[in-house]
Amino acid sequence: MSEPKEPIQDIAHLGHVEILTPKPDESLRFFADVLGMHEVARRGRSVYLRGWGDYDCTTFTLTESDRAGLGHAGWRAVSPQALERRARALEATGRGMGWIDGDVGHGPAYQFTDPDGHRMEVYYESEKYRAPDEWRSKLKNQPQKYAGRGVGVQRLDHVNLMCRDVTANKEFLQEHLGFKLREHIVLDNGVEAGAWVSVSQLVHDIAYTRDFTGNRGRLHHAAFWLDNREDVLRAADILTEHEVFIETGPAKHSITQAFFLYLYEPGGNRIELFSGGYLIFAPDWEPVTWSEAERGTGVYWGGALPESFKIYGTPVVAAPVDQRPEVPAFDPQ
Amino acid sequence: MSEPKEPIQDIAHLGHVEILTPKPDESLRFFADVLGMHEVARRGRSVYLRGWGDYDCTTFTLTESDRAGLGHAGWRAVSPQALERRARALEATGRGMGWIDGDVGHGPAYQFTDPDGHRMEVYYESEKYRAPDEWRSKLKNQPQKYAGRGVGVQRLDHVNLMCRDVTANKEFLQEHLGFKLREHIVLDNGVEAGAWVSVSQLVHDIAYTRDFTGNRGRLHHAAFWLDNREDVLRAADILTEHEVFIETGPAKHSITQAFFLYLYEPGGNRIELFSGGYLIFAPDWEPVTWSEAERGTGVYWGGALPESFKIYGTPVVAAPVDQRPEVPAFDPQ
Amino acid sequence: MSEPKEPIQDIAHLGHVEILTPKPDESLRFFADVLGMHEVARRGRSVYLRGWGDYDCTTFTLTESDRAGLGHAGWRAVSPQALERRARALEATGRGMGWIDGDVGHGPAYQFTDPDGHRMEVYYESEKYRAPDEWRSKLKNQPQKYAGRGVGVQRLDHVNLMCRDVTANKEFLQEHLGFKLREHIVLDNGVEAGAWVSVSQLVHDIAYTRDFTGNRGRLHHAAFWLDNREDVLRAADILTEHEVFIETGPAKHSITQAFFLYLYEPGGNRIELFSGGYLIFAPDWEPVTWSEAERGTGVYWGGALPESFKIYGTPVVAAPVDQRPEVPAFDPQ
Amino acid sequence: MSEPKEPIQDIAHLGHVEILTPKPDESLRFFADVLGMHEVARRGRSVYLRGWGDYDCTTFTLTESDRAGLGHAGWRAVSPQALERRARALEATGRGMGWIDGDVGHGPAYQFTDPDGHRMEVYYESEKYRAPDEWRSKLKNQPQKYAGRGVGVQRLDHVNLMCRDVTANKEFLQEHLGFKLREHIVLDNGVEAGAWVSVSQLVHDIAYTRDFTGNRGRLHHAAFWLDNREDVLRAADILTEHEVFIETGPAKHSITQAFFLYLYEPGGNRIELFSGGYLIFAPDWEPVTWSEAERGTGVYWGGALPESFKIYGTPVVAAPVDQRPEVPAFDPQ
Repeated sequence: MSEPKEPIQDIAHLGHVEILTPKPDESLRFFADVLGMHEVARRGRSVYLRGWGDYDCTTFTLTESDRAGLGHAGWRAVSPQALERRARALEATGRGMGWIDGDVGHGPAYQFTDPDGHRMEVYYESEKYRAPDEWRSKLKNQPQKYAGRGVGVQRLDHVNLMCRDVTANKEFLQEHLGFKLREHIVLDNGVEAGAWVSVSQLVHDIAYTRDFTGNRGRLHHAAFWLDNREDVLRAADILTEHEVFIETGPAKHSITQAFFLYLYEPGGNRIELFSGGYLIFAPDWEPVTWSEAERGTGVYWGGALPESFKIYGTPVVAAPVDQRPEVPAFDPQ
Repeated sequence: MSEPKEPIQDIAHLGHVEILTPKPDESLRFFADVLGMHEVARRGRSVYLRGWGDYDCTTFTLTESDRAGLGHAGWRAVSPQALERRARALEATGRGMGWIDGDVGHGPAYQFTDPDGHRMEVYYESEKYRAPDEWRSKLKNQPQKYAGRGVGVQRLDHVNLMCRDVTANKEFLQEHLGFKLREHIVLDNGVEAGAWVSVSQLVHDIAYTRDFTGNRGRLHHAAFWLDNREDVLRAADILTEHEVFIETGPAKHSITQAFFLYLYEPGGNRIELFSGGYLIFAPDWEPVTWSEAERGTGVYWGGALPESFKIYGTPVVAAPVDQRPEVPAFDPQ
Repeated sequence: MSEPKEPIQDIAHLGHVEILTPKPDESLRFFADVLGMHEVARRGRSVYLRGWGDYDCTTFTLTESDRAGLGHAGWRAVSPQALERRARALEATGRGMGWIDGDVGHGPAYQFTDPDGHRMEVYYESEKYRAPDEWRSKLKNQPQKYAGRGVGVQRLDHVNLMCRDVTANKEFLQEHLGFKLREHIVLDNGVEAGAWVSVSQLVHDIAYTRDFTGNRGRLHHAAFWLDNREDVLRAADILTEHEVFIETGPAKHSITQAFFLYLYEPGGNRIELFSGGYLIFAPDWEPVTWSEAERGTGVYWGGALPESFKIYGTPVVAAPVDQRPEVPAFDPQ
Repeated sequence: MSEPKEPIQDIAHLGHVEILTPKPDESLRFFADVLGMHEVARRGRSVYLRGWGDYDCTTFTLTESDRAGLGHAGWRAVSPQALERRARALEATGRGMGWIDGDVGHGPAYQFTDPDGHRMEVYYESEKYRAPDEWRSKLKNQPQKYAGRGVGVQRLDHVNLMCRDVTANKEFLQEHLGFKLREHIVLDNGVEAGAWVSVSQLVHDIAYTRDFTGNRGRLHHAAFWLDNREDVLRAADILTEHEVFIETGPAKHSITQAFFLYLYEPGGNRIELFSGGYLIFAPDWEPVTWSEAERGTGVYWGGALPESFKIYGTPVVAAPVDQRPEVPAFDPQ
């Protein structure tokens, strides 16, 4: 038997996510006042935000648009050399879109799309957050003060994208960016219905879940981390008082073990607030495979995931092309 | 300006820690019944244990000895090639001790000592825990059932070693094993009094703290992770009922932000139970430097660290050679 | 306007609950090993248990029977005189059953039934728990050590009884025992579907909820208190690993604000584990009235209560007489 | 043996506390912005505040004064008749000060002083909080929305008063107002150094602790309730970022079992934030007596109480008359 191939270790983590919203003012109020995020800049039709625990200057962008959905996801490389390597590899896939000079908070980025069409980019240079005096924490290892305002999300954690072909998208990230498969759902017909992959020790920096409507390029959710489960329960109180629609949770996923809460922000995008889960230290992690039966209702305990969790995503589509997982409606790639 | 050097990424994480105890029976009862660890094997004078969340078969070894202290710490490499590279690098330092065939739970390991004399090893092959039926969790991504017995420590987290020269030991790990400096204390006289370093996204897989008694090779503590702060508070109740000596805590460190509890196990070794802290995702993390004044009492809030925290370690020494940080008593290396 | 009548303050609190089980061995294992209750005595076909925080010697009795359900509920009076007063008042209602000499843990008790037929008793003399040495807590104000075993329920909290006519049962307790109405549900047709009443500062020492099957004398659930919400989440893990059926929760009730978890013990009785809620200090508390619309799904947030929550009770009845709340099937009393 | 006397049950709970502050603006900012209390009215030199969970319109008054300290404590009676009875009983003690018409939030009150000279009052009529629309909670049983601002104290809980003679003050409340002794410290010389008494099911609505400086009429602290221990830990973060002096905690008292945090508000008064503790349901509760040895450092676990905890109170006195508990410096009453 030959030696195992050495792992690609060029991507460090999910650096930022851009979300599109047709209701920019309401969305901004929600992320700032209810979730307690901090605004750091505005440019064009975009507002750049951060959680109090994000080391980067900005990690979350709200961009005005006619439809909700994902703008793009940005991956930070571990070094300039790693960025170059990944750009070359991506270019070779035919999915590369070329370099941009940078954006608020980061330098040159190589853009590309995943097989399903979601826009992504890789970059290395990043602007660390330097808190102004009034926001400097007594904790030198904390980017800024904890404001104690609203939910108080700590940091951007991951993004979950809907797609027609989970396997193709997962493999694209594995082969060209060094992502590792952590957990996945394999339906009885052999189709992969969800894959949780990461480059970091988190169970997922990104997840792909099958779009049972047969559409492409949609966002399932972006997720923020809270430091403990009491914060998630406290968030449920705050969200309810603000009449925010909580789709499901608090409950505990079997996959990832996350203790979660899903809500729709005013622009229509699904947002997850969560804590818990587990860290992966094993360099030879064996992916956990869940059958349909094992996956069950999607929770370890707590209310079962509703049907909307399977088919609702952004952009919102008028009617699902096909909601039956057994007979996927999409043309194979 | 030249490009930054690419990071060494050969070590995955702290794999196991061996602790020596002159009271093996009491120590075992403590780790099994009070902390809730699981015994997986016995060999010679050693008992091999695990936390319910450890993916490895065993992560903690109790070995009967005439004195308390550290047996050794084991680092898992990311690949067979990475292990070879690190073994060669260590050999070149002159601190290599050669290969052993393996031990309960892992394969061939290259042994060495750090500059202060603590024994360590690097290995790649590791035996994953395969729970027997009665301990198999409903959660396929959890190595075993949570027993709900005693404190219920989840997994081994890090080790803190006392040493004469923090800088020399820290640099040894940085240069030859790819550890990254996360936080450190620099005294007013320029001496580094503590350094927290890691290869993983944890703030520290290992910390070196200055041994103000002027001794060598001592253990400050081994630390176990609990999943939330309520578990740490619950542990305080359980420990108190069992008349276990709690040296300090619950309180929150400024350095690492850990919410901690320190106790002495029956053999005399200091053990930390903690939760909280933060994860490091930045590939270019800027080490946080704490001055004497900034370090203060060692806590962000909660009772100040007692004097014993500075000088007590294992093996226990009759009297500190010198407790004055200003005039270190050791011969320079 | 005349002065308000002075309140009856003769009943102190819910003292004990007896549950019938057709599977006494499985039930006992569940309450002892999974919930972590302590056995204090056996007599006849009954086993007497306690939570670690119960000041009384015993608060929960498991009695072997051919059917699950409520054995009886015991109310402790505030003084011998208060007991006499209540016994006389109950006798005058025609629902008195006379005195018994006492039982394990308490002295003479006056027995009676509520209008729906549930058996109850009032008593004053009670045996405080005197922990044997090995169970004596370091905390002199805590009845015994916290064992750290299983869920670790702290104390009996309340009982919820199903009945045909909520109003009649509620008023019986108000008029003859001094219970105060805290919250209730009034359906659109004017029928009271649930009433939460108490003599203590708890929101409810007992609740009556309409039995939509038209049956009488059934138990909805008995409830145990956990000291914080993390304990409830931890209980969910433990119950799931033990394959205990969790009917609903964790979630937060709007009524009572309890953070709850409902399960069926092996004998079939529904048990609630909860924390949170609120205390009532106002001597002139204004009952909170929930309309059908306001009650909604029964939760403030978290998964909606399932249909079984409305109709399942013990003894289990083969088929609901009528599940439609609009057209209650019972003959008026 | 004669029957036990029936308990007086005329006082319902601690209704409000008035605190004096020489820095009214800073104090107000602290209670409103940092602790998250809500201002409901201003009158004269007083600002009336409430916690989000207080059912009364106002429970906490800040009054400008040249010195910090207690203004007065208000006790709510269970009925108009109970108020009359207590006023007569107090008048008979010679410590009555007569009736006042009322104040913001409550009706006629009978004022008096305890033997140590602290001003108190009893009243019945109280104005419930009616939240304006924007503050009305979705929870009909919650007085108002949880704002998610700062610490977010839920409700006033108790007051702790320093006094020369603990026994005399405790007995005054027991005999004339029906308070019950829950826990107390008895020094080796037989002197009672602290007494925790209540009319409610809380362990203490008020505590008396010996003023080792020999002064009279001082305030040890007023205490606010937080719904869980995570909130107390979160408060520690918020207070530290606001540079509020935390005197001691988070830690767990042995007496009352409270999980506490003590701070000094800008006016100099000590404030406790806490959760945990236990409820007392027994009508015949046996007071828990702690010897000097059993009391120890005042904590069950966590950092020992500092010396200031014994001698600091408001008004602040330049120098303690006598700090030695063995030889109390006061003239006996």
